[in-house]
Amino acid sequence: MITIRKAANDDWPMIWEVIGPIIRAGETYALSRDMSEDDAQKYWMGSDRETFVAVDDGDILGTYYIRANQAGGGSHVANCGYMTKTKMTGRGIARTMCEHSLLYARSAGYRAMQFNFVVSTNERAVRLWQFLGFEIVGRLPLAFQQPSGNFVDALVLFKALAAQRGSHQ
Amino acid sequence: MITIRKAANDDWPMIWEVIGPIIRAGETYALSRDMSEDDAQKYWMGSDRETFVAVDDGDILGTYYIRANQAGGGSHVANCGYMTKTKMTGRGIARTMCEHSLLYARSAGYRAMQFNFVVSTNERAVRLWQFLGFEIVGRLPLAFQQPSGNFVDALVLFKALAAQRGSHQ
Repeated sequence: MITIRKAANDDWPMIWEVIGPIIRAGETYALSRDMSEDDAQKYWMGSDRETFVAVDDGDILGTYYIRANQAGGGSHVANCGYMTKTKMTGRGIARTMCEHSLLYARSAGYRAMQFNFVVSTNERAVRLWQFLGFEIVGRLPLAFQQPSGNFVDALVLFKALAAQRGSHQ
Repeated sequence: MITIRKAANDDWPMIWEVIGPIIRAGETYALSRDMSEDDAQKYWMGSDRETFVAVDDGDILGTYYIRANQAGGGSHVANCGYMTKTKMTGRGIARTMCEHSLLYARSAGYRAMQFNFVVSTNERAVRLWQFLGFEIVGRLPLAFQQPSGNFVDALVLFKALAAQRGSHQ
């Protein structure tokens, strides 16, 4: 039974066990593969965001953050990043975290959620986000270089959370 | 005759004269309208970017920054922000700065340039970026709230700088 709760500073070692291998692999996130553990903590648990963990029987199997994607006139759109422990994929952890983040975003007053940079080859993630109602609203040509050296597209995904008023322009 | 040069710390008071009114107006940039001058300096002249000024007869009429848009596998794509002194629009300052930034980005090894958040109602800017070869690759529905309260779309613009190899996927 997976539960989601706010991350505490004490959780960092187990969070690092989740996100460290993914950062080092460099296949899905546009983060420096050799960033220090300290910099990773400053990034993932920074003061500009809220960080959550997905816990099963005391083990942290996944983690996500939520923050405003832009400041000022863009601060009503949330942005999240999710990571699931490498050997635990396919168990619904990412889906549970994303559903939690959508509810949390709504309760926090966000009107939409945006993912800025989903690597197009991360097909499992793209399918999941689409299943959860995200639309591909942008395609960044060859914007991601895989560790192999190959350049592939990145995608921008977007989901409205509220009945939005305003003029499309 | 407008010349572009690297910004020095001493330039800050004149840079602030350019960007302060634009930040306070909140019509075109997703920045907090009431951010302090100190925070604005940390943002516009931060250590993660290079900042330039457009100078005419000793006066700073415009300024731009260039930085990597993403870390790691996304660091070959540049991102820029440009601001022109409010009363000086229409004199080609933004165009001169953008052309300079494209040359500079190429020389620095960037393979593309991306603007993440161009407010769709900023029609002059959108037309200029398109004239300079940028394509609209994404549309973020109602992602920007104008000071009036109205929500309007924001656009993602992208321009390849090099003959790119790789597989579109």
